[in-house]
Amino acid sequence: MNLEKLAETVSKIDSFLSSRLSGEPKDLYQAASYLIDHGGKRLRPYMVIKSCQILGGTMKQSIPAAAAVEMVHNFTLVHDDIMDNDEVRHGVPTVHVRFGMPIGILAGDLLFSRAFETISKPYLHKSGNVGLNLVATLAKACTDVCEGQALDISMAKSSKIPSEDQYIKMIEKKTSSLFVASCAMGAISANKDFADVTRLSTFGRNLGIAFQIIDDLIGVTGNPKITKKPVGNDIREGKKSLPILMAIKKASSQEKKIILNAFGNSSVSKSEVERAISTISSLGIEDTIKQKAMYHSNAAMKSILIYDGSAKNELLSLLDFVVERSL
Amino acid sequence: MNLEKLAETVSKIDSFLSSRLSGEPKDLYQAASYLIDHGGKRLRPYMVIKSCQILGGTMKQSIPAAAAVEMVHNFTLVHDDIMDNDEVRHGVPTVHVRFGMPIGILAGDLLFSRAFETISKPYLHKSGNVGLNLVATLAKACTDVCEGQALDISMAKSSKIPSEDQYIKMIEKKTSSLFVASCAMGAISANKDFADVTRLSTFGRNLGIAFQIIDDLIGVTGNPKITKKPVGNDIREGKKSLPILMAIKKASSQEKKIILNAFGNSSVSKSEVERAISTISSLGIEDTIKQKAMYHSNAAMKSILIYDGSAKNELLSLLDFVVERSL
Repeated sequence: MNLEKLAETVSKIDSFLSSRLSGEPKDLYQAASYLIDHGGKRLRPYMVIKSCQILGGTMKQSIPAAAAVEMVHNFTLVHDDIMDNDEVRHGVPTVHVRFGMPIGILAGDLLFSRAFETISKPYLHKSGNVGLNLVATLAKACTDVCEGQALDISMAKSSKIPSEDQYIKMIEKKTSSLFVASCAMGAISANKDFADVTRLSTFGRNLGIAFQIIDDLIGVTGNPKITKKPVGNDIREGKKSLPILMAIKKASSQEKKIILNAFGNSSVSKSEVERAISTISSLGIEDTIKQKAMYHSNAAMKSILIYDGSAKNELLSLLDFVVERSL
Repeated sequence: MNLEKLAETVSKIDSFLSSRLSGEPKDLYQAASYLIDHGGKRLRPYMVIKSCQILGGTMKQSIPAAAAVEMVHNFTLVHDDIMDNDEVRHGVPTVHVRFGMPIGILAGDLLFSRAFETISKPYLHKSGNVGLNLVATLAKACTDVCEGQALDISMAKSSKIPSEDQYIKMIEKKTSSLFVASCAMGAISANKDFADVTRLSTFGRNLGIAFQIIDDLIGVTGNPKITKKPVGNDIREGKKSLPILMAIKKASSQEKKIILNAFGNSSVSKSEVERAISTISSLGIEDTIKQKAMYHSNAAMKSILIYDGSAKNELLSLLDFVVERSL
């Protein structure tokens, strides 16, 4: 992936975001900008911009939608961290830890309302329905994200291990829906019709699923130097992610015992976690998961084959980047 | 106020709301509907509908905006209850107490996204910019509400007693902005122009301020049988509301001592609270506050004098109802 291109795009988005996230009272706006200021790859705004450019639109046309999507993404992070009681993100304290829980909730809410201000105001005096289409698309995605997060919470609470289908349904809502919206909103910003919006949405949906599948794999077998999390973090936390549910389905009763001994067990020793990881690896799970990610990556690629130009290549590079994070 | 008219309107809004708040997972949608199902006067949707009708619009035209405003109102209640750690509302457990904090946060978020879906989708294939205007107006109001709530939190934390101006600025954002949006969105739903939207917004702003001023008065001196809260509840909780800050400004040092002894003191005796209330009453605060509410009520009335018809009378009755709650 051309990281320079990404960095150049990011800097334009960042200055627009910071202009849209200033106001009074200061601590509320600081809390709302806090995570954005401290990291994030800006994958979603990049997808908005490139989805607009692939259809002949300009970066300028796509900036409001790109910023709105990043605000919504950060809103979900801020609220998720409160729900999960997480204390660190991007290597800094989470928003509710830094500013207190009430301002944390409000900062998320503010990012939400600012996102919808950002995609409505600039279109108020323009003809056509680009603005309203952006709003309807983003609002639907937010509903999906809420539903996906509620599914995730109920999966985590349940004593059952979910099926693969249930799991994919959950990540389609929780993660993929905002990638779908990003690509769709890029196409809408370029003032394109239904067929283009659908193609780009298909790209976003498949990229999103591949992204989450690989993320889950990294969470279990990933190199702690890259993930910046302790080895086998998701096993210790008892996260019912794809590698775990596939491994448990495939394991012998002896292997299952080794995995479940470490699963959701915060006081488990490092060597026991490592034994669980190597047991999972020995089941051939990694290859199967990478194949699944590749399947979705291919589907994403196919959906934009009819286009040409540099934005197409940049979207394809992004796809490689997402899948190859695991290698 | 003609309560039959209100009840008739409420039942139409309620069935629309319930159709917009059904989905999966069930517990999330139950949590999102929970407060709406258990009470609320639907003042804001009533204002949307009457503001549309006063300009010649129909109830049908105003239903999406009316429902969206009620969803946003309930979203703020659900999140406020988490921030304030309140356990009871409308005589039932608050959403986060009943469904747990994570689902409470999500239920609020879902109400938010559903509100924006509700005012965007029906307008997608219509000409004109009614839908986008509704979105921009509601999103701006949500930002104001967040800012107002943050101001309220910082006032509560501070050791200082705020000035009357600071207080009014806070309630304009926290409470009044959604009344402004309700009336403006009614006018926009009727497809009316800037002058009408401005007049109705002025009505909503002044009604909202009067509403909150009276609410604060009831919180200090109100009859517990009507408020369903212990006598002097806001004094015990240390709420820096208008009656308190006016009383403290006006009190002699001896009187101040009596008030501050009960203020924010959860273990204070009933007779000490009553002594604080009668001290506040003896300062003539109640009359001054009622005059302030009347001032805003008059300003509201004047702003819609140029109109005629039954919806005008209903809005004026609503104004009386809001101000006369204290009598």
